[in-house]
Amino acid sequence: MEQNIIVSVDVVLFTLSEGQLKIVLLRRERDPYAGQLALPGGYIHADKDRDSLASAERVLLNKTGLVSPYLEQLYTFSGGVRDPRGWSLSVAYYALVHESLLVPDAELRFELWPVAAVPDLPFDHNRIVDHAAKRLRDKSTYTSLPCHLLPELFTLTELQQTYEHILGVALDKSVFRRKLPELDFLEAVPDAIRQGKHRPAQLYRLRPDRRLTIFDKTV
Amino acid sequence: MEQNIIVSVDVVLFTLSEGQLKIVLLRRERDPYAGQLALPGGYIHADKDRDSLASAERVLLNKTGLVSPYLEQLYTFSGGVRDPRGWSLSVAYYALVHESLLVPDAELRFELWPVAAVPDLPFDHNRIVDHAAKRLRDKSTYTSLPCHLLPELFTLTELQQTYEHILGVALDKSVFRRKLPELDFLEAVPDAIRQGKHRPAQLYRLRPDRRLTIFDKTV
Repeated sequence: MEQNIIVSVDVVLFTLSEGQLKIVLLRRERDPYAGQLALPGGYIHADKDRDSLASAERVLLNKTGLVSPYLEQLYTFSGGVRDPRGWSLSVAYYALVHESLLVPDAELRFELWPVAAVPDLPFDHNRIVDHAAKRLRDKSTYTSLPCHLLPELFTLTELQQTYEHILGVALDKSVFRRKLPELDFLEAVPDAIRQGKHRPAQLYRLRPDRRLTIFDKTV
Repeated sequence: MEQNIIVSVDVVLFTLSEGQLKIVLLRRERDPYAGQLALPGGYIHADKDRDSLASAERVLLNKTGLVSPYLEQLYTFSGGVRDPRGWSLSVAYYALVHESLLVPDAELRFELWPVAAVPDLPFDHNRIVDHAAKRLRDKSTYTSLPCHLLPELFTLTELQQTYEHILGVALDKSVFRRKLPELDFLEAVPDAIRQGKHRPAQLYRLRPDRRLTIFDKTV
């Protein structure tokens, strides 16, 4: 049976940079929309991808050099009008990484754009970005998801700022600290204190048993 | 470009029947797995479906006679081993309907099976059912979703029983009623009282402005 459907994956890759929540965009090498900024994406290759998650991992590796620590299926976008080449379906994923893992080089020329100032993108990529940002906000209020934007060790102030960047609102410090015990995914690292211009701050990390696994693999 | 990917939709259709949460299964007419019970599903038709939601609506209408009041994208399942015909991808949806809308006839020969006793299904349909049941439970605790399993007017006792069937646990009546105001999606219907063998019970309905819309259309 000949279905004539273009099947691809797209990835919204979030990071925190310069105090802003940003995503990775790349200039398209080929038509349609050659030269325009778009999400990292590509065809599913039935001859070599185990499933659509493997396709997303391959695309991320090839286009950003990254093996993502957290990659979750977002939503599947489809229809006859989203791609000028014909009826298409894209399984969208999102990922979160600490900025230090994103090292542009001569071959991997991606750009970081603030979620709050994403330019007009081809296909329905703006809709995909909006959907991913909403999912990230919704899940951040009750999971350890934001920790994946931080380095391994971080202070409570850094964690609060990360939530603030994602949610787009200032949080009251005393309320935030009072709620932390409810989110029992943190552990203080023994003897790890950061000295700074302010008073010394205890360093925390995500409890190993509470790290999010890749949802696709645990469904 | 020839991708050789089979692209389909599958639907997990929930209802409440005989005091149990059930799903609709159909005997497959064609190979593979002809004669076996499976989820309602079918190919995406790029020549006539607007998007994958339209495919799911078409499949539901053709196989169950139903225009669903609530249909939400669940997850996309894919890979090289789930279908003996080759690499395949299925966009799965779930829907909830009141039992009265499901009227089997000579042409539409679907069956209702308790979620707790679903038989072995072909493809990865058991995995899809498990995923849908988990989503339903997770969303039921904080949305009006379960109301879609009830007739238009219902008593608070019926609503509590519906939550109990979905969650699989008995709920304390006084705790349930105390929490209802937090879930402000109900309204008492003026002068609508059900007389029964017990004392008269006020009838309620879902507030029109709080009905869930089809997620696909509002993304």
